[in-house]
Amino acid sequence: MGRTADYSKQSCAVAATLEVVGDPWTLLILRDAFQGVRRFEQWQDRLGVARNVLAARLKALVANGVLTTRLYSERPPRKEYLLTHKGKDLRPVLLTMAAWGDQHVYGEGGGPHVRIHDPCGHEFKAKLVCEGCGEALTPGDLTFEARHEGHMPTVAEAMAKA
Amino acid sequence: MGRTADYSKQSCAVAATLEVVGDPWTLLILRDAFQGVRRFEQWQDRLGVARNVLAARLKALVANGVLTTRLYSERPPRKEYLLTHKGKDLRPVLLTMAAWGDQHVYGEGGGPHVRIHDPCGHEFKAKLVCEGCGEALTPGDLTFEARHEGHMPTVAEAMAKA
Repeated sequence: MGRTADYSKQSCAVAATLEVVGDPWTLLILRDAFQGVRRFEQWQDRLGVARNVLAARLKALVANGVLTTRLYSERPPRKEYLLTHKGKDLRPVLLTMAAWGDQHVYGEGGGPHVRIHDPCGHEFKAKLVCEGCGEALTPGDLTFEARHEGHMPTVAEAMAKA
Repeated sequence: MGRTADYSKQSCAVAATLEVVGDPWTLLILRDAFQGVRRFEQWQDRLGVARNVLAARLKALVANGVLTTRLYSERPPRKEYLLTHKGKDLRPVLLTMAAWGDQHVYGEGGGPHVRIHDPCGHEFKAKLVCEGCGEALTPGDLTFEARHEGHMPTVAEAMAKA
């Protein structure tokens, strides 16, 4: 493998996610989608990304079922891009990234944006808990093991099956 | 900007995180660090990444305070890489990525690995809650706004200050 990581041959759920969204630009495209961006020109304005690169990333996200398209004009035909259920499930990835950037890159005083958790009115701070018991994670409290004996399916195999 | 995203000019906590860990390979290097990998040769074996690329990524992670080095042999001098506190705080990013890959790429039957939450014995499933009220997120329950009026610091400005 060269400078560009090939995630597809690994047998790993993190690599699987990176295979779909780990491309440069893609997580920023999704960040904007969560803020309501739906149209090509809006992304282009916000990201300053080359049009051919943006078109390729949107196409891949649609092919991978993260975004779906809808016509918002018939003449001329114009489409917009909406997050699917699968795409919306990436919100925790973006929110944990935002939390880390706020705390460890921007540091004291926090990042440029605040997310308010409307139901309670607090500034949203992401906390990851175990769905089973509801407790927050502490260092070293997870044990990592193979799910099955025998062949470990690669990312490419999982994507071919989907 | 070209095919490679330049995150540094954005004013955004997600972009800030990507500036530090958004490079291809880097999140896989960190994934392995969370599984106990500390030495150059171990990463090289597991990832199959070119040595110069791996060396550059480790150097950047040390420069950014995500990993720190420690000599484990004096003659010959050999160093290993340990996650700092800042690095350990990336665990939620990797765990939410793993959760998404398990569910949406590997799908039915789950991914190749299981993470057991030792305190309760359940298979760990990541759930993101609001630190303020403890409630799980629901769609559309976050309002996004600027933290301050006036200049929004870019990622590059934040990193220069740190």
